[in-house]
Amino acid sequence: MNDPAIRLQVDAEDGNARAGTLFTRRGEIETPVFMPVGTAGSVKGIRFEELEDHDLDARIILGNTYHLWLRPGIETIRAAGGLHRFIGWDRALLTDSGGFQVWSLGALRKISEEGTEFRSHVDGSLRFLSPEVSMDVQAAMGSDIVMVFDECAPGQAPLEEARQSMELTARWARRSRVRFDALQQEENADAGRKPEERLSGRQALFGIVQGAAHLDLRRESLQRTMEIDFDGYAIGGLSVGEGKKVMWEVVGEIAPLMPASRPRYLMGVGTPEDLLEAVSHGVDMFDCVLPTRNGRTGQAFTSRGKLNIKNARWTTDTRPLDESCRCSVCRRHSRAFLRHLYLTGEMLASILLTHHNLAFFLDTMRRVRQSIRSGDFPTFRREFTERLRANGG
Amino acid sequence: MNDPAIRLQVDAEDGNARAGTLFTRRGEIETPVFMPVGTAGSVKGIRFEELEDHDLDARIILGNTYHLWLRPGIETIRAAGGLHRFIGWDRALLTDSGGFQVWSLGALRKISEEGTEFRSHVDGSLRFLSPEVSMDVQAAMGSDIVMVFDECAPGQAPLEEARQSMELTARWARRSRVRFDALQQEENADAGRKPEERLSGRQALFGIVQGAAHLDLRRESLQRTMEIDFDGYAIGGLSVGEGKKVMWEVVGEIAPLMPASRPRYLMGVGTPEDLLEAVSHGVDMFDCVLPTRNGRTGQAFTSRGKLNIKNARWTTDTRPLDESCRCSVCRRHSRAFLRHLYLTGEMLASILLTHHNLAFFLDTMRRVRQSIRSGDFPTFRREFTERLRANGG
Repeated sequence: MNDPAIRLQVDAEDGNARAGTLFTRRGEIETPVFMPVGTAGSVKGIRFEELEDHDLDARIILGNTYHLWLRPGIETIRAAGGLHRFIGWDRALLTDSGGFQVWSLGALRKISEEGTEFRSHVDGSLRFLSPEVSMDVQAAMGSDIVMVFDECAPGQAPLEEARQSMELTARWARRSRVRFDALQQEENADAGRKPEERLSGRQALFGIVQGAAHLDLRRESLQRTMEIDFDGYAIGGLSVGEGKKVMWEVVGEIAPLMPASRPRYLMGVGTPEDLLEAVSHGVDMFDCVLPTRNGRTGQAFTSRGKLNIKNARWTTDTRPLDESCRCSVCRRHSRAFLRHLYLTGEMLASILLTHHNLAFFLDTMRRVRQSIRSGDFPTFRREFTERLRANGG
Repeated sequence: MNDPAIRLQVDAEDGNARAGTLFTRRGEIETPVFMPVGTAGSVKGIRFEELEDHDLDARIILGNTYHLWLRPGIETIRAAGGLHRFIGWDRALLTDSGGFQVWSLGALRKISEEGTEFRSHVDGSLRFLSPEVSMDVQAAMGSDIVMVFDECAPGQAPLEEARQSMELTARWARRSRVRFDALQQEENADAGRKPEERLSGRQALFGIVQGAAHLDLRRESLQRTMEIDFDGYAIGGLSVGEGKKVMWEVVGEIAPLMPASRPRYLMGVGTPEDLLEAVSHGVDMFDCVLPTRNGRTGQAFTSRGKLNIKNARWTTDTRPLDESCRCSVCRRHSRAFLRHLYLTGEMLASILLTHHNLAFFLDTMRRVRQSIRSGDFPTFRREFTERLRANGG
């Protein structure tokens, strides 16, 4: 019982940036790490074999409690023996709590002290999500990293509204912790239990810092979250309309104050530039739908900026998406072919662009880690950012 | 100039069924062979790496002249250095002539002695396809196997209509041959030239037997096609509403009469049962959209018959699609997960079902070849067919 559920080993630091290894019950994860988003149990447009292959080598992916709880439902996942076995993925899984996605439903949900009532987008049925339900669901899924059930305030929420939301989050965090701890004592609650050397094999639980754009609320939220004590700490409630300037004020203030011995996770962020900025403040973990979603709409991320594959200028362009990229798509296919696939509505366009985009994000993080280890992260970041501005050329 | 463009070596015979090796300028193809259909330059839902991988190991795929000619257009393909280089596929490619697809447009096309005028489904422009244009386009694409430009009659076409259509096809076959031969003399017409040991490196040209359901017309069509002399012979104009009984009468009559030293190709057919029936009459080559199209609509082909993945009975079924299948999808994923992916509209459902279906078709052909080589094709066929009737269970 004294073994931790997860353990971060910081291997190198460069300013506030840090490179390390996160030991989980389902393998080691080098940090800073980007986690592809597998909303409903699938990272859209890509097979698990490719996520594992050296091109990508994603060590951890994210699943959405909200989506999976509604469909296929927890009974189905439990019948399969947990989410890993249901989807066929034996590496680490982080699940969010459903809090953010229920909050995103806007007028369709009603928040009370007890939890959040909402109508399912799948069948219109009335559902209720609370800290306890979220912990139950994440245990039944057997996620390796569980997120507390939190409440998000709008990016521009005024002080009083943001304070109330932050305080509700703090109370829900405590309730999440209590229920989570109880579930970890039960024999069969956690479907993903898998003892590893020097790890308990239990689930890890991360707290979430809220407080909108108000730095004093953010600091208080961090303090109250740390008092509860979690295996890792996340910054939530950003990328929700507050603007980049505010986001970096919050991250720049809060990330360095988070416990150095625990992983720090910036939720739902962001572009390649965003990842580098956040890393410079000491963030270790990221997730974002950008590489997959933009892949499906014909946008490629490249070392020279974004590239719109629909553009007529690529009609006969035999170059790969990114001449600096070594991924299987760039080794094989031209912009001209990818454009053709996109224009004819071939599924393969989404498949290939998604693969390349994920390869670019994951390779960028690999290079970030190397640069921190060799002590030249600032130089790497400056050169990387300058190239991005070349804009697709 | 005396080297052939393609060469069939018959390795074993069992009744009319035969197993052999087709030597092409882009590799060896064991026959009987199933060719996945890559309509617009992509076999829908699957990456080229997977087509090459041992699970599938597709040695030849098919491209559609009609689709590729309209989009991206021949200038774009020529600019890339031919279709192989445009799409990134270095194995063998067969292209149809566009004849069948233009014919399928029905009221939207006008057929004359010279060729067929039609409106493009892409931009509504008026286009004209003829034997000469089709040969020009297929040369510019650099296909390894070129099909003559033919005219198809409806499955139930009465004798006189079918005769006129068959005679037009015969005249078009001769014009195709003349233009094709002229193009092969030109230095840069064929974008795919690639000399191989004991092969000319030139394109191969296949003739097509027409004549609807009329056996005497079919025999006459075969005779007139053989007189022109082609590298291979196809049976066209089947699977167009004539019914299975008629189809097998035609195939059973015509296939054994086709030159034994040349590959025999049954166009657009069919189900696994159809493939085995046709093989029993001596057919060597097949193409069909069934495995890919049905994969996208949630239907799996298995050794125990078709399986509809939408069916509620699979909700918590942890078995693979086909317990006898060794493909990467069956090794990893359950029916329950595939059903979930399909119901949530995840692209991965189509990707995985397509992969499995192609694996099933290609593996079936592998087993067909083995059974012919070991002289027990009839037994294999009987057992295979009996299992299919078990119906998904």
